[in-house]
Amino acid sequence: MIIQLEKGIQQQDLQKLRDSLNGIDYKSNEVQTQFQHYIIGVGKKEFDIRSIGTLPGIKDIHRVSDAYKLVSRKWRVEDSVIDLGDGVKLGTGHFEIMAGPCSIESDEQIETTLQHLQKNNIRIMRGGVYKPRSSPYSFRGLGLEGLVRWHEAAKRYGIKIITEVMMTEQIEDMLPYVDILQVGARNSQNFNLLDALGKIDKPVLLKRGISGTIDELLQAAEYIFSNGNEKIMLCERGIRSYEKAYRNTMDINAIPILKEKTHLPVIADPSHGIGVRRHVSKVALATVAAGADGVIMEVHAQPEKAFSDGQQTLNFSEANKAYEDMRKMREIVNGG
Amino acid sequence: MIIQLEKGIQQQDLQKLRDSLNGIDYKSNEVQTQFQHYIIGVGKKEFDIRSIGTLPGIKDIHRVSDAYKLVSRKWRVEDSVIDLGDGVKLGTGHFEIMAGPCSIESDEQIETTLQHLQKNNIRIMRGGVYKPRSSPYSFRGLGLEGLVRWHEAAKRYGIKIITEVMMTEQIEDMLPYVDILQVGARNSQNFNLLDALGKIDKPVLLKRGISGTIDELLQAAEYIFSNGNEKIMLCERGIRSYEKAYRNTMDINAIPILKEKTHLPVIADPSHGIGVRRHVSKVALATVAAGADGVIMEVHAQPEKAFSDGQQTLNFSEANKAYEDMRKMREIVNGG
Amino acid sequence: MIIQLEKGIQQQDLQKLRDSLNGIDYKSNEVQTQFQHYIIGVGKKEFDIRSIGTLPGIKDIHRVSDAYKLVSRKWRVEDSVIDLGDGVKLGTGHFEIMAGPCSIESDEQIETTLQHLQKNNIRIMRGGVYKPRSSPYSFRGLGLEGLVRWHEAAKRYGIKIITEVMMTEQIEDMLPYVDILQVGARNSQNFNLLDALGKIDKPVLLKRGISGTIDELLQAAEYIFSNGNEKIMLCERGIRSYEKAYRNTMDINAIPILKEKTHLPVIADPSHGIGVRRHVSKVALATVAAGADGVIMEVHAQPEKAFSDGQQTLNFSEANKAYEDMRKMREIVNGG
Amino acid sequence: MIIQLEKGIQQQDLQKLRDSLNGIDYKSNEVQTQFQHYIIGVGKKEFDIRSIGTLPGIKDIHRVSDAYKLVSRKWRVEDSVIDLGDGVKLGTGHFEIMAGPCSIESDEQIETTLQHLQKNNIRIMRGGVYKPRSSPYSFRGLGLEGLVRWHEAAKRYGIKIITEVMMTEQIEDMLPYVDILQVGARNSQNFNLLDALGKIDKPVLLKRGISGTIDELLQAAEYIFSNGNEKIMLCERGIRSYEKAYRNTMDINAIPILKEKTHLPVIADPSHGIGVRRHVSKVALATVAAGADGVIMEVHAQPEKAFSDGQQTLNFSEANKAYEDMRKMREIVNGG
Repeated sequence: MIIQLEKGIQQQDLQKLRDSLNGIDYKSNEVQTQFQHYIIGVGKKEFDIRSIGTLPGIKDIHRVSDAYKLVSRKWRVEDSVIDLGDGVKLGTGHFEIMAGPCSIESDEQIETTLQHLQKNNIRIMRGGVYKPRSSPYSFRGLGLEGLVRWHEAAKRYGIKIITEVMMTEQIEDMLPYVDILQVGARNSQNFNLLDALGKIDKPVLLKRGISGTIDELLQAAEYIFSNGNEKIMLCERGIRSYEKAYRNTMDINAIPILKEKTHLPVIADPSHGIGVRRHVSKVALATVAAGADGVIMEVHAQPEKAFSDGQQTLNFSEANKAYEDMRKMREIVNGG
Repeated sequence: MIIQLEKGIQQQDLQKLRDSLNGIDYKSNEVQTQFQHYIIGVGKKEFDIRSIGTLPGIKDIHRVSDAYKLVSRKWRVEDSVIDLGDGVKLGTGHFEIMAGPCSIESDEQIETTLQHLQKNNIRIMRGGVYKPRSSPYSFRGLGLEGLVRWHEAAKRYGIKIITEVMMTEQIEDMLPYVDILQVGARNSQNFNLLDALGKIDKPVLLKRGISGTIDELLQAAEYIFSNGNEKIMLCERGIRSYEKAYRNTMDINAIPILKEKTHLPVIADPSHGIGVRRHVSKVALATVAAGADGVIMEVHAQPEKAFSDGQQTLNFSEANKAYEDMRKMREIVNGG
Repeated sequence: MIIQLEKGIQQQDLQKLRDSLNGIDYKSNEVQTQFQHYIIGVGKKEFDIRSIGTLPGIKDIHRVSDAYKLVSRKWRVEDSVIDLGDGVKLGTGHFEIMAGPCSIESDEQIETTLQHLQKNNIRIMRGGVYKPRSSPYSFRGLGLEGLVRWHEAAKRYGIKIITEVMMTEQIEDMLPYVDILQVGARNSQNFNLLDALGKIDKPVLLKRGISGTIDELLQAAEYIFSNGNEKIMLCERGIRSYEKAYRNTMDINAIPILKEKTHLPVIADPSHGIGVRRHVSKVALATVAAGADGVIMEVHAQPEKAFSDGQQTLNFSEANKAYEDMRKMREIVNGG
Repeated sequence: MIIQLEKGIQQQDLQKLRDSLNGIDYKSNEVQTQFQHYIIGVGKKEFDIRSIGTLPGIKDIHRVSDAYKLVSRKWRVEDSVIDLGDGVKLGTGHFEIMAGPCSIESDEQIETTLQHLQKNNIRIMRGGVYKPRSSPYSFRGLGLEGLVRWHEAAKRYGIKIITEVMMTEQIEDMLPYVDILQVGARNSQNFNLLDALGKIDKPVLLKRGISGTIDELLQAAEYIFSNGNEKIMLCERGIRSYEKAYRNTMDINAIPILKEKTHLPVIADPSHGIGVRRHVSKVALATVAAGADGVIMEVHAQPEKAFSDGQQTLNFSEANKAYEDMRKMREIVNGG
């Protein structure tokens, strides 16, 4: 059960509400986000919600039967749109492409990529400075120093930055230099990290786990939201299956299913979703057709020379065509 | 290794070829299809294929490293197009929608569906008269009698018929009444059935197994082709995964991958691919965006009352919109 | 709902029962097996089963909520034991090992294997004469002729034969020469084959599908049982998963789960269950520890030279040790 | 390539080695563990390792083609045994059972469990004080305070403690109170946590990811080892599959495969491995038969009243029997 409180609810009214919930054996979780103030009541007893809803200081009340609450569309019927500033918005009606390399490698690479993005009117650049790598002996990214230089360059172009955060301790240092913090598939159930990301006021893109269920993804988002941060995007990036003809199985079904279950924006990652460069554009188109609110993809001036994951990375001319196709597709889907 | 023979190759030249293959320890499999005459040589020794290629009576020769041979694009670079007659073709450049109920139920249902299809300019009707059912106590279809009546009605509308065949013994009886024989997911490795379907001159739509690999699908197609029938379409219908939010996981990746690996037409089945009625249209659009040559989907005047699988079946007005969207999408993809 | 009838039920009593079921909108399926006579009533209405149970000619009546009925332990509480004659029984309390090559290859191979089995007191020999092969160009077995010669030799040793049947048309010819007919994983939902196997009086070993669920396996068994053949064994042979370190994922959980859900004997196939020769014995031991009623495994005098699947086949000395260990294990499990 | 150094290698010899590796374009990673000093050379060039192996200060050198190096049995042929003190060892030849509740709940529960363990001669108690929970609204454990009280009690009984650590910041505080730190399935690729656990001198039990591959598990262990901690155990706890008849699919194959690929001890978790209380004992037996070096399982005085996961938890009398059976099994396996 979600109870949305009036902004300036009196302490005594809040206490009365808590007592009422207590009285029916409901645990009350207080949630204060950038935008709103809620009590999440968790319990089993059946009762007439009007008996709570008519208490003073309460704006709205809803039963939500899902395991997740605040991210559920049963609670919020309208789509959430995330405002990154400078006219860049993410969510229904605001399709955005985020593109860039797997890893940030050098000043020159940053510059070349930013030029490519600007030329294509892409307003968000992706890139990793902290890289989760299966082997401890692999390159793990340029770290904070790389991020700072990337930020400096991106600012000159007016292009926003999305990059992965891997641990709680990194958040504070990264905050001044990022526009969206990404949680990778391997950390999708790193609950302490999710808790911490709920305590900042910066958009988070949350990737589905490598074999995560849709329900687990939504509950992971609930961790962030219930800690106070409403600015969340979900990202479908392919799941692990038995098939060996490609790297991951893009779960195209997840896109309409997520759009139905939650009000949060849904982003697709076709690069990881298939993991085979020559098919990324086709899969990207499909995700737009299925209703994705945005697409994040890997591009590089010379994928063959990329530090990592070059095999799923488009070069600039492949990318140019992909952007154009996706935007055309988006218009059709919207108009349809 | 595939050796394409001249149409009227002399017996003595054929024998000379066999002897040459024998001489290098290659097993030779003779394949005579509706269209061509081949020898498939299977062996391990490395040798100069020109030594074979210059023998008399040989039109073409290629090494094909795939486990499948004749269905591989390494052999035939151009897309195969299947001609159903009356201007209905399947394959690259000839997008077709096949629609109809899960099960054929009654004359009235047949008639209503045919009218709906005609109105929408759909030229192929799907429907089951032999139904593979998990439980022996479920309805198993109207059988041959139902097919005969369906055929009679469809002929009046000039609409073609695709329906599932479940066992070798059914083929002969069904042949006069069908335009495409479908092999269901549960029979995708029923090799005796595949052998038998290779011996007829009628198009076959081969569904991927419930957890079949792309490679297994192609090898299943090779069974049909190598028995003499080149008229094969492949169908991606969703795979089994751990996710419980829907019935099957539409493998959108399989579409571009199959288009790359084989010259055969690739059809998508979004109804089974997600199994959730309210999302079928979105998934259908995505498969067209990904490059499917055709779509097969379940429609019914009243899905709630369908004998089986109503939960993934569109009603006529939902279907009308889906057809329109897919066709628009197809134009964009083609033009793109 | 299962209604077991008195052996000599009067036609008029049977009719009265059918009418009663009709009256409450239950479909009645008559099942006459080697041993018993049943009516399976399928319907939705709640009613007092005593109103049916007290009709004349009825021996027993039970509600069975599972999708499968006659194979459910909710119906038959006691374990079914299958008698192969000559003191060889399969089922709880009668552990048997079935061993032999993947494919029957030659008279010499048959003879050597039979000697090996006799020495180890193994009473059932496995081997394929019809082989389901992914590629149409692979060896498909010696066929009926091979079976006849194998049978002749096995009879001399007093050893029973289990071999795979791939299509309905093969059954009649094979019957005189086999003791158990095996349905392979690829045919586990070949419903017409299952129907046909229900109409004979010969034990059937039914393998779980490559990605079959436990529920599907039990419903497949229900096909055989409801067509009249109670002599069914189920076989867990590993499922398909994402893991690449071995060929299949032996589902050890399936063994206790199947033993709980059904009264039929449960056999394990560790050779396919892992598909890696040097680990087959360990996995075999584990399946016995988990409660398997029998084990089927691949052995060959020279696995390296086997026609097929040598990589999961034990040689005779490896097998000797495996048999001994399994039997010791079985005693412990039984005594425990 | 692994180069084991002499304990007191001279700085100049170390430098000479680094230069040599540099000279052939090998990256050198220095690893200093509790026990040894290594250089891991990563590069592609072929060369005669004797040219390196004969340098001063080098004890041993091996090529290891696996993605993981120090945990590979290609490097260390003998099994690693982890000494917990007081005669408690883990690894080949030292079978140990670890048992206890999912969550530590109260002093009384701790006491009752310790008594139960003592009576059964179990020397390691499991229990969670930091719980990874899918929903942010679920009980997350008693935290450090609970651990301190548990430790106090366990000390009185001479029983060791294994408990889960969820984030780097918790490690230091937990260290004085734990004997083994467990990394849960959801953190199996939390690389920063693995790095941190490599910097302490305390045994770590590393669980396989929910859909983790065997290779990923070994690379995760390599993270810990290469940071300096050789005391690692691996734990198979079931993988995610499509089957719905139980919670996880115990991957019995993983046990012999891991024992082959690595020298580290392999522990099985049958409670999570099937997730169904009435079958846990059977699966536990199977894992011992397959060669597990230890078993970790959930027990509780009253599983029905457990704070979490009661459905896979044995009560004390079920557990008594399971311990006894596993120990008997272990003797047979060892003797066999």
